[in-house]
Amino acid sequence: MIRIHIFLVFLLLPLTMRSQEDICIGKKYSLYSTVLQEERNYWVHLPDNYEGDTTQRYQVIYLLDGDSFFHSVVGISQTFTTVKGKHLPPSIIVGVLNVDRTRDLTPTASAARRDGKISPGTLPQGGGSESFCRFLTEELRGVIDSSYRTNGQNMLIGHSYSGLFTLNTFLRHTELFDTYLAIDPSLWWDQGKLSQEAASLIEGKNFAGKSLYIGVASKKRTDRVDIHLNKVNHLLQEILPQAENLRFFSKSFPEENHGTVAIPGIYDGIKQLFGK
Amino acid sequence: MIRIHIFLVFLLLPLTMRSQEDICIGKKYSLYSTVLQEERNYWVHLPDNYEGDTTQRYQVIYLLDGDSFFHSVVGISQTFTTVKGKHLPPSIIVGVLNVDRTRDLTPTASAARRDGKISPGTLPQGGGSESFCRFLTEELRGVIDSSYRTNGQNMLIGHSYSGLFTLNTFLRHTELFDTYLAIDPSLWWDQGKLSQEAASLIEGKNFAGKSLYIGVASKKRTDRVDIHLNKVNHLLQEILPQAENLRFFSKSFPEENHGTVAIPGIYDGIKQLFGK
Repeated sequence: MIRIHIFLVFLLLPLTMRSQEDICIGKKYSLYSTVLQEERNYWVHLPDNYEGDTTQRYQVIYLLDGDSFFHSVVGISQTFTTVKGKHLPPSIIVGVLNVDRTRDLTPTASAARRDGKISPGTLPQGGGSESFCRFLTEELRGVIDSSYRTNGQNMLIGHSYSGLFTLNTFLRHTELFDTYLAIDPSLWWDQGKLSQEAASLIEGKNFAGKSLYIGVASKKRTDRVDIHLNKVNHLLQEILPQAENLRFFSKSFPEENHGTVAIPGIYDGIKQLFGK
Repeated sequence: MIRIHIFLVFLLLPLTMRSQEDICIGKKYSLYSTVLQEERNYWVHLPDNYEGDTTQRYQVIYLLDGDSFFHSVVGISQTFTTVKGKHLPPSIIVGVLNVDRTRDLTPTASAARRDGKISPGTLPQGGGSESFCRFLTEELRGVIDSSYRTNGQNMLIGHSYSGLFTLNTFLRHTELFDTYLAIDPSLWWDQGKLSQEAASLIEGKNFAGKSLYIGVASKKRTDRVDIHLNKVNHLLQEILPQAENLRFFSKSFPEENHGTVAIPGIYDGIKQLFGK
């Protein structure tokens, strides 16, 4: 039996050594959401020194559209910690994967297109953001907070529909996160309803301790009519400057379109939100 | 003996399943360089479908300062392949790690500071870029080309001293790479020697088939005197537009400094070099 044990150790040794040569940035997990009644996947990245210093606790970044942006945001956080000019405290990054973006990320059901018009016979879609928000901040956060050394600081990052979700959460459930980063939020949704409601949602509210960044792709496009930019500008220029005690940042990207703005926007947002 | 084998399979099964849940972006390797007479580390990322389609061959991106930028550039390439608007063909990314940046990345030995002045008693440093270039394009490329399905297209990415190395390689050994991406190259090195030599280095040369991008951090700084920006502007405006048949792109980043420009610069460079 001793000989078998020795044999086992020698058998496993090269496997262990080989696996040390992999460069891994996180792990894949899933949990069953009773709110959404489905299995949901999420990916978790831990800061480099997580195992080394077991007394430190960390901010959690909830990154929507994790399938598209997890690798980039982990990379950006890695560069920010190795290159001069640190702009982000070491963070736990939780990439949340999609099942049905329209259902989960939009605050109201709507049949309207990007140009604000409704084609005859189109059925309303979406409107499930309240349930998704409960999954995110009750079920998923519960698992994250009980599994890792979190410090109670939470950040939400979203682009496009996820940017709309981020802004909607900021406006309606401000208390749920500390830092909000929304890139090119789809404010054209439901004929611009959220931007119309924004003024009344911030009225009388105190945003002390909260930070918001909005990045906007402002490259002119001729291929489609879109009420998006008008709604965003209204929010940026008229509404948000009135939010009391809010740390608010924004940037317009005249050379980026809705798709290409995500990475430069997230990068600039992190830099402005956490910069010195 | 059969029972022991069955026991082994059950013992290893959970390990295998657990390891499948890791999110890995590459592997760490090293090789002994006879040119540099030292062991050199490099990291390799293979495109997602590398094992799935064994007939496809890929461009290789040689990324300098791999320790700082490997994760980010892998992430950017990942986002470019999952989000609308693909801007980069699937590529093998080779991150090259540093041993002595000043020695390896500068083309001449120099005692001059960023302001062009030489403090009394300062000894010249650097000047080893020819040896490092041979390591990179003979020894390392030899290993990469014989280990992976490369297609003969090679790209070089470098920031700061590595940007200087990238530009020097472009000017002196144009044939060695197809695409060059230099971010905020340290043209102040040796009192701006490379930019002084640039005009004669491009004279009479045909750059057909070659592409170059230069990203420049143009945020004004008051904390130090630096001859860098003058040298860069001279190169961008006077010299490079004369390079025959060169595909040349550049961008100035007025809100970024030398440290923060790396990621937005690499992102924009890839977008411009490979965009439609």
